[in-house]
Amino acid sequence: MFPSESVNPMPAEKLNLQQLAEQLEFLVEQGRSEDVRLLIADERPEDVAEALLELESSAIRLVLTWVDAETASQLVQNIDDDYWNELLTPLARQRLVEILEELPSDDAADLLTELDDEISGQILEEQSGNEEFRHVTALLQYPEDTAGALMNPDIVYVQETLNTDEALNMIRRNIESFKDINYIFITNGEARLTGVLPLPILISSGREALLREIMLTDVIAVDVFADQDEVVDTVRKYELTTLPVIDSHQHLMGIITIDDVLDVIEEQSDEDVYKMAGLGEDPEAQGSAFKSALARIPWLLLCLGGSMVAGKIIHIFEPTLERLLVLASFMPAVMGMAGNSGLQTSTLMIRNLVTGPSLRDHLWQLIRREMGVALVIGSVCGLCAGIMAQVLFEGGIVGLVVGLSMFISILFSTCLGIVLPLLLDKTGIDPAVASGPLIATLNDSTAITIYLGLGTLMLVFFTKI
Amino acid sequence: MFPSESVNPMPAEKLNLQQLAEQLEFLVEQGRSEDVRLLIADERPEDVAEALLELESSAIRLVLTWVDAETASQLVQNIDDDYWNELLTPLARQRLVEILEELPSDDAADLLTELDDEISGQILEEQSGNEEFRHVTALLQYPEDTAGALMNPDIVYVQETLNTDEALNMIRRNIESFKDINYIFITNGEARLTGVLPLPILISSGREALLREIMLTDVIAVDVFADQDEVVDTVRKYELTTLPVIDSHQHLMGIITIDDVLDVIEEQSDEDVYKMAGLGEDPEAQGSAFKSALARIPWLLLCLGGSMVAGKIIHIFEPTLERLLVLASFMPAVMGMAGNSGLQTSTLMIRNLVTGPSLRDHLWQLIRREMGVALVIGSVCGLCAGIMAQVLFEGGIVGLVVGLSMFISILFSTCLGIVLPLLLDKTGIDPAVASGPLIATLNDSTAITIYLGLGTLMLVFFTKI
Repeated sequence: MFPSESVNPMPAEKLNLQQLAEQLEFLVEQGRSEDVRLLIADERPEDVAEALLELESSAIRLVLTWVDAETASQLVQNIDDDYWNELLTPLARQRLVEILEELPSDDAADLLTELDDEISGQILEEQSGNEEFRHVTALLQYPEDTAGALMNPDIVYVQETLNTDEALNMIRRNIESFKDINYIFITNGEARLTGVLPLPILISSGREALLREIMLTDVIAVDVFADQDEVVDTVRKYELTTLPVIDSHQHLMGIITIDDVLDVIEEQSDEDVYKMAGLGEDPEAQGSAFKSALARIPWLLLCLGGSMVAGKIIHIFEPTLERLLVLASFMPAVMGMAGNSGLQTSTLMIRNLVTGPSLRDHLWQLIRREMGVALVIGSVCGLCAGIMAQVLFEGGIVGLVVGLSMFISILFSTCLGIVLPLLLDKTGIDPAVASGPLIATLNDSTAITIYLGLGTLMLVFFTKI
Repeated sequence: MFPSESVNPMPAEKLNLQQLAEQLEFLVEQGRSEDVRLLIADERPEDVAEALLELESSAIRLVLTWVDAETASQLVQNIDDDYWNELLTPLARQRLVEILEELPSDDAADLLTELDDEISGQILEEQSGNEEFRHVTALLQYPEDTAGALMNPDIVYVQETLNTDEALNMIRRNIESFKDINYIFITNGEARLTGVLPLPILISSGREALLREIMLTDVIAVDVFADQDEVVDTVRKYELTTLPVIDSHQHLMGIITIDDVLDVIEEQSDEDVYKMAGLGEDPEAQGSAFKSALARIPWLLLCLGGSMVAGKIIHIFEPTLERLLVLASFMPAVMGMAGNSGLQTSTLMIRNLVTGPSLRDHLWQLIRREMGVALVIGSVCGLCAGIMAQVLFEGGIVGLVVGLSMFISILFSTCLGIVLPLLLDKTGIDPAVASGPLIATLNDSTAITIYLGLGTLMLVFFTKI
């Protein structure tokens, strides 16, 4: 493969993936299983998995049936777990079990979690005597989103009483288990984690040096029941590629590798976006349309209730609207702009409150800046809206009312966008979840009150003159 | 430190960080620089950096001045680069240069990018003869967001003509450079990257084996001008902890480590959220309130224009509103609910289109499900809104108009949320950026047309009876 194509994988790969997908599709259509096997053997499993996604699900399942179980498990590992259920549930039970046996324990446990409960339950029952499933069953005991559910329990550790030469020999004898490992984890006689040793240091230490004497004892580890957010924070903070997991007695239970952490980070990034749209934690996994709808309805009804409050306020101002009906035309603009600038400020506030440790002075600087931004934006948008109202619609006092109320309501909604996330954060409620409908409702209601209230005042004032 | 506190860092750490911050604050206030140095020497730099953030910026600067340059550079590395400018720009020039000299080249280049242009320009000019700055200056030549700007050029590589023993000796002699390295990168006589070797395989190969014969030749690398998105995709796909960077002649230019990749991923995750709120790519870095406002105004004016279209439609329907003014009260509800359900659908569509390769059948399944969700949500919300309108406000035909138009407009906005991201994606426009105001405007206008149009029809119909 090397050199021209794989050293610079990107330009070549784009073409290759397309070609690979087309070839696979062609061979599957023709039923040429032997050629599929040969083609796949020549390519990286990551590339094959990506190309497979271009095929129909039924064709992917055929490929997963034709190749040997080890290859099938490598392909499954490289397909996003969001697709595992719809893709693998229809697979023959026998093949599914073979793939599960070949997968690393942590991935096998993930797969069983993703599959329909009925099927995974049956498999676990049938395979309860299967030695290969022992680790997997153990992993499934840990609550979802804990370090225990993330870790790989298949680890080799080394006794602290060995010397450098003995440790190196152990690596040589167990090269398969150590292949991707950059640290050796060291335990004492009671199997408690007592140290860690990066391979370069092991290599460069004297041959007879005792591990106990050269190992690093300041080990960063997480508890097996720690939340996965803690895992991500620890790995990010200390820039680790491997994080050991221990129980309350400091026994080494497993390790979490950086690729598992990357998956969690991606999940969290999706969640941040979904939260903003009121979609719940994992809208892709909510199953049927009915279940998805149920998950979204509470949030939507909250919004509906909020806009009914705004409606009630409009109702109160009906006498004003009756006298100056054109005011109704600018309600969407005034409410919309207040909503948008409130959303922008609250988004920045939430990001600063939620993500990582932040500089003490920074939040105040942000708040000061957002108030400045609100002044500029309020002036510009108020002026534009006022002029548009005057030019595009009939004149009179409407332009003044629109412009002025837009300015005031943008300032107000910015203040809300600052204060509300702070309050929610103090009370321990996730500001990202609660801010959406709450801020929108308050914004709508106050914007409409300011707008129609100002309109009423103007009417009174101009009538008097 | 070990065992009780550091093995289980989280519960202990929380307390420790607070205590550490308080002690630091106390010692800085008292001006006890020697005690600060002693305290910091006992703690992990990651923890000290996190504790420092609790102090005022001026106190942090004092600490960075009191400790030696190496410690200061370690602390700076563990502070989020978002804060570098406001924190480090006021530092004495001499100290800033010392910190830059101690930082790894990639971090030093990042710091110079973050600092005020004036100051970094002056430093680069003054230090143009400084050998320590040679690599840094070279890195600054690469465009931002490329692999070149991310990589660390301080790498040690090994000739493919060496044997295992010679390679191991080389690691022993250069232990400082190899300390965090898990692979050795192997080049030929022309300094071209030809292979890679994980340390466990090096350790377990025969002593006299030539690297050329045992190395892995299927090396994944990226071009020095590759976009950072490509870097992230490659690292994620192939689950790498170190990614070599090469030029067009396959010369090894540097390596990108997983912690740099994590920083990029975090940045991208922030961007996704900011895009949804129309905040531009990096609102934290936009500087003054005036600049931030300028960056947001185009998006806001687009929204304003959109709501003016909705306003014009309301204007057209004034005769209907004159006859049935209570209709005005439910405009926020009808527009708001259409907007919310459109946002939910478009968010899911955008995530599926933008993030990674997705299963071919999956998008269709999502679309089918979203239509089902719209039917359920439209029915439930339409019914609730209709009843609320009937009960909370005067009766008549209003409840029917509100309920029915909400049902129709939710269905319509869901279709928009499906079609618009698909169209934008086909035309190569980032659907995440363009969807916001475009969908909102179309939703507002169609929802208000459906609502007031239906109201007009009903009025005509009931008047005729």
